Amino acid sequence: MTNTNLKLYEINSLVTKVLVKYGCNMENASAVADVIESAEAAGCHSHGLMRLPGYVATLKSGKVNGKACPTVENLAPAVIKVNGHNGFAPYALQQGRSHLIKSTRKCGIGVMSLVGIHHFAALWTEVEPIANEGLVAFACTSYKPAVIPAGGTKALYGTNPIAFGWPRKSHPPMVFDQASSVMARGEVMLAAREEHALPDGVGVDVDGKPTNDPNEVLKGALLAFGGHKGSSIAMMVELLAGGLIGESFSFEAAVRDNADGGPPQGGELMIAIDPNLLGDADNWSDHSEKLFEKITEQEGARLPSDRRHKNRIESLKSGVMVANILLDKIRVL
Amino acid sequence: MTNTNLKLYEINSLVTKVLVKYGCNMENASAVADVIESAEAAGCHSHGLMRLPGYVATLKSGKVNGKACPTVENLAPAVIKVNGHNGFAPYALQQGRSHLIKSTRKCGIGVMSLVGIHHFAALWTEVEPIANEGLVAFACTSYKPAVIPAGGTKALYGTNPIAFGWPRKSHPPMVFDQASSVMARGEVMLAAREEHALPDGVGVDVDGKPTNDPNEVLKGALLAFGGHKGSSIAMMVELLAGGLIGESFSFEAAVRDNADGGPPQGGELMIAIDPNLLGDADNWSDHSEKLFEKITEQEGARLPSDRRHKNRIESLKSGVMVANILLDKIRVL
Repeated sequence: MTNTNLKLYEINSLVTKVLVKYGCNMENASAVADVIESAEAAGCHSHGLMRLPGYVATLKSGKVNGKACPTVENLAPAVIKVNGHNGFAPYALQQGRSHLIKSTRKCGIGVMSLVGIHHFAALWTEVEPIANEGLVAFACTSYKPAVIPAGGTKALYGTNPIAFGWPRKSHPPMVFDQASSVMARGEVMLAAREEHALPDGVGVDVDGKPTNDPNEVLKGALLAFGGHKGSSIAMMVELLAGGLIGESFSFEAAVRDNADGGPPQGGELMIAIDPNLLGDADNWSDHSEKLFEKITEQEGARLPSDRRHKNRIESLKSGVMVANILLDKIRVL
Repeated sequence: MTNTNLKLYEINSLVTKVLVKYGCNMENASAVADVIESAEAAGCHSHGLMRLPGYVATLKSGKVNGKACPTVENLAPAVIKVNGHNGFAPYALQQGRSHLIKSTRKCGIGVMSLVGIHHFAALWTEVEPIANEGLVAFACTSYKPAVIPAGGTKALYGTNPIAFGWPRKSHPPMVFDQASSVMARGEVMLAAREEHALPDGVGVDVDGKPTNDPNEVLKGALLAFGGHKGSSIAMMVELLAGGLIGESFSFEAAVRDNADGGPPQGGELMIAIDPNLLGDADNWSDHSEKLFEKITEQEGARLPSDRRHKNRIESLKSGVMVANILLDKIRVL
């Protein structure tokens, strides 16, 4: 497989051009382009250009409104509600973010619900900008059924990622972002293509029986990470990003979805905390660096976002290698 | 092993009597007695009477102040800070709870930090009363190093439980409470006593090498559940219940602790959300029941707190069976 080297701004403008061609206005196109650029810059290719055909599919099918204009409400002193009015998540997030930050700085903690959005990006791109503002940030979103509840047999929960960001004075924020499934669906697809067996405990077949065959798992379902504990977290995400905010659960999103290959409509929840208002304003940052030191001084242990930060520095200098096969697909668009 | 049947009120008054004898005032003694009673009632014996000798040890060693009078501050509209002034957690929690509920009902979301407390109870006993008031609740606390960071070799994180409570109209709240380790330390101790090998992936020996020998794991460390994902959650708990609120990390708590067998001093964080202020006040509860139905209609799947609720109904009627060996130990106290 051959690759082409692209500068980050080239990726951004390529994505913007394609999305505008298929009906996005500049606001929506450039918000999506920014998150795809961030993903590529960080070496997180599974959420980068690879997602563009899916975004385009939803515009072509008419499921997503590429010109959606998100509205923001302040439902309570610390509650921001953003209605994406059936657009892509990135522009809705962008519009709500400053309000969440403002409420959080006033109240100490704030919550933002996002409804009527189509979410197709990595969550870390959403908590990072908030952590860059000096706030602790949490986000979660559901999707379509892919994970079985512990003890059960059928997919009910989405892969339901959670992300957490922690601001640091002399470093980029510490950010983790993890699906509630043992393995990402994309990795299972890769195993199927390469005809590898899966490790034990990744998924079940269509009858809910454990299997190591990736093709069977793709027809069946994934298991939550860490057994019933990951399953509880997947359930919590359904409640926070669905039931709590008046949006659909994964199983409801799937029923409504037209299966055009792009993201279904769903919800998201973000929480931000101002560490300067929690009682240790002068010391929390330096103090917490001691924990990070204790982690990284253990050989083999690392902070979750280290690799992404290194990739980003590298790609700012040298650009990103993009597979020609993907690039050709995008150029056809 | 023979048992004695005790009514719940008998457990409560036994605990109160013992704690008062060793220097607690009534406020502190009865707050601890209530959580021990709740644990026994719910069949959660590992956090019930079994903990009483540890509570007593800390009073005898002078580590904990049994007459501590917690103070509550409102640091920001949605931030409550409780200083336990070196007492047990339950009374501090009791004193802060109504303030957290009030702030949350006003702001939509609220956070309560607890510092200067000694935590030795199950977290679900703390989110449940908040969920009983119709709010969504989250809690986490750290302890002493017991879990290695993913990829590392030495215990750094506590078993760091998280708990989540969801209010329900016609049922007791849905509550889960789970340690960040694959297995609770108590279960490993049980395996050692009964000379059972542990399953793969539970822990490592003192050199950080995987082992199935429970005695080696007790000298070494536990692994986080679900590999690096559980490890990230354990780290998040350290940051929220330590760095964020000006309390110690698990590794710091251990240095300061006198190893009297009782809980070290540490911190805790709670977050509450008012679902009536998140934009779907009329429907969130009924809507969320549909998710619970979808879970329980799968054979083998169940809601996390179902067993506790059943035990509670049973023990209100028939009392609780307590091992005589434990009872004798307590009666000596």
